[in-house]
Amino acid sequence: MADQHIVKQFDEELDEMRATIAQMGGMVEQQMTNAIMAISRRDEVMAKRCQEADSEIDAMEDKIEALTTRMLALRQPVALDLRAILAALKIAHNLERMGDYAKNVAKRASALAQLPEVGPVNGIVRMGRLTHGIIKDVLDAYAEPNVDKAVAAWTRDQEIDQMYNSLFRELLTYMMEDPRNITACAHLLFVAKNIERIGDHATNIAETVYFQEKGTRLEGLRPKSDRTSYAVVEPPEADEAI
Amino acid sequence: MADQHIVKQFDEELDEMRATIAQMGGMVEQQMTNAIMAISRRDEVMAKRCQEADSEIDAMEDKIEALTTRMLALRQPVALDLRAILAALKIAHNLERMGDYAKNVAKRASALAQLPEVGPVNGIVRMGRLTHGIIKDVLDAYAEPNVDKAVAAWTRDQEIDQMYNSLFRELLTYMMEDPRNITACAHLLFVAKNIERIGDHATNIAETVYFQEKGTRLEGLRPKSDRTSYAVVEPPEADEAI
Repeated sequence: MADQHIVKQFDEELDEMRATIAQMGGMVEQQMTNAIMAISRRDEVMAKRCQEADSEIDAMEDKIEALTTRMLALRQPVALDLRAILAALKIAHNLERMGDYAKNVAKRASALAQLPEVGPVNGIVRMGRLTHGIIKDVLDAYAEPNVDKAVAAWTRDQEIDQMYNSLFRELLTYMMEDPRNITACAHLLFVAKNIERIGDHATNIAETVYFQEKGTRLEGLRPKSDRTSYAVVEPPEADEAI
Repeated sequence: MADQHIVKQFDEELDEMRATIAQMGGMVEQQMTNAIMAISRRDEVMAKRCQEADSEIDAMEDKIEALTTRMLALRQPVALDLRAILAALKIAHNLERMGDYAKNVAKRASALAQLPEVGPVNGIVRMGRLTHGIIKDVLDAYAEPNVDKAVAAWTRDQEIDQMYNSLFRELLTYMMEDPRNITACAHLLFVAKNIERIGDHATNIAETVYFQEKGTRLEGLRPKSDRTSYAVVEPPEADEAI
């Protein structure tokens, strides 16, 4: 009876851990939506809200660390349970990073509000929506859990990288056309990079779900499609320039 | 006797874990030195070496994950030992991120080699040296362990942020002066940001050392000094421009 009682308690703790991850994931999704809105509307109030929400997300990571450390110390889990606990720790860390990047995206709204509007903001919004969809999918993959869904989301990260590549070039071209665009576009370069990093963390979560369920690594490195580190964009020739 | 034997084995495993962290830290230090050299000399061979070294650093993180998971499962540690194991896991993760950022710095050497040289590269080299010093200090703080050294390194991260602020503005000014500088300076913006992120991860390690030793959080949030998200840099007025 005493043993059964302990097992039941432990199951409840594991459930609480998973529910906390789901709640934290929901907060990161909301943060992402708000950050993109802050940038597209150059909305400083929304940017401030993102900044406040970030500390709530940090607090959730602390909560998951406390829960998992307690379980490791008191329940001394092995095999599947140990894997689930270490997976939750990793996922919480990834979600915290995603929240942080979203906050950094939102922060730039106030600089953008003081600068001339530039076109590539629309591309940023599209990239943000795509990334938000992928975050939703990996969180569903964790909650169900569903390995196929995790792998599908993991593969779609390439689409984010491709959008980032186009945006990188587009932003540089805007800068070359008119020096008054340079500061806004430099901020948008970082916004685009941060969204691309959020996508990378989403794929990390997909990998963790896979490992938790299968006990092996997701095989075959996904081809990295962010090629911008090598990009050379030339300004138009002097005689072609207006 | 059997108990003593188990205790001795566990101590050896903890020693191995710490030695592996030290080795991984040394690799990240070397990676940092090589990445800065690749950028300052626009040296594509060195950049390629950094790329190869990154997978060795990743393998070290895997090794530490395997070691710690095994200890958690077989030794079921509590209190100080549990804290040391979770600290090693966190530090390995931070070192992996630092290695990754350093690789990303080095990667941009090949784009830079095809572009006109720009002045702010010297500032990048100084920022890289400062960051390298802080990495060395937090690794020493972990190895000894020495809480005071960890706190001192943690505080010095502000210097990195300040250098990053100046570089951000300097790079934007170079872009505004001549559109031919734009691509090189965009790459250097990311290089500077990556070094700043490496510094952030070094402070995370300092915080982990503090928590491992004291069991409490490093009090008082260090003031964040990266203010570039809010920076508005204006091009010179048309009539002032050459």
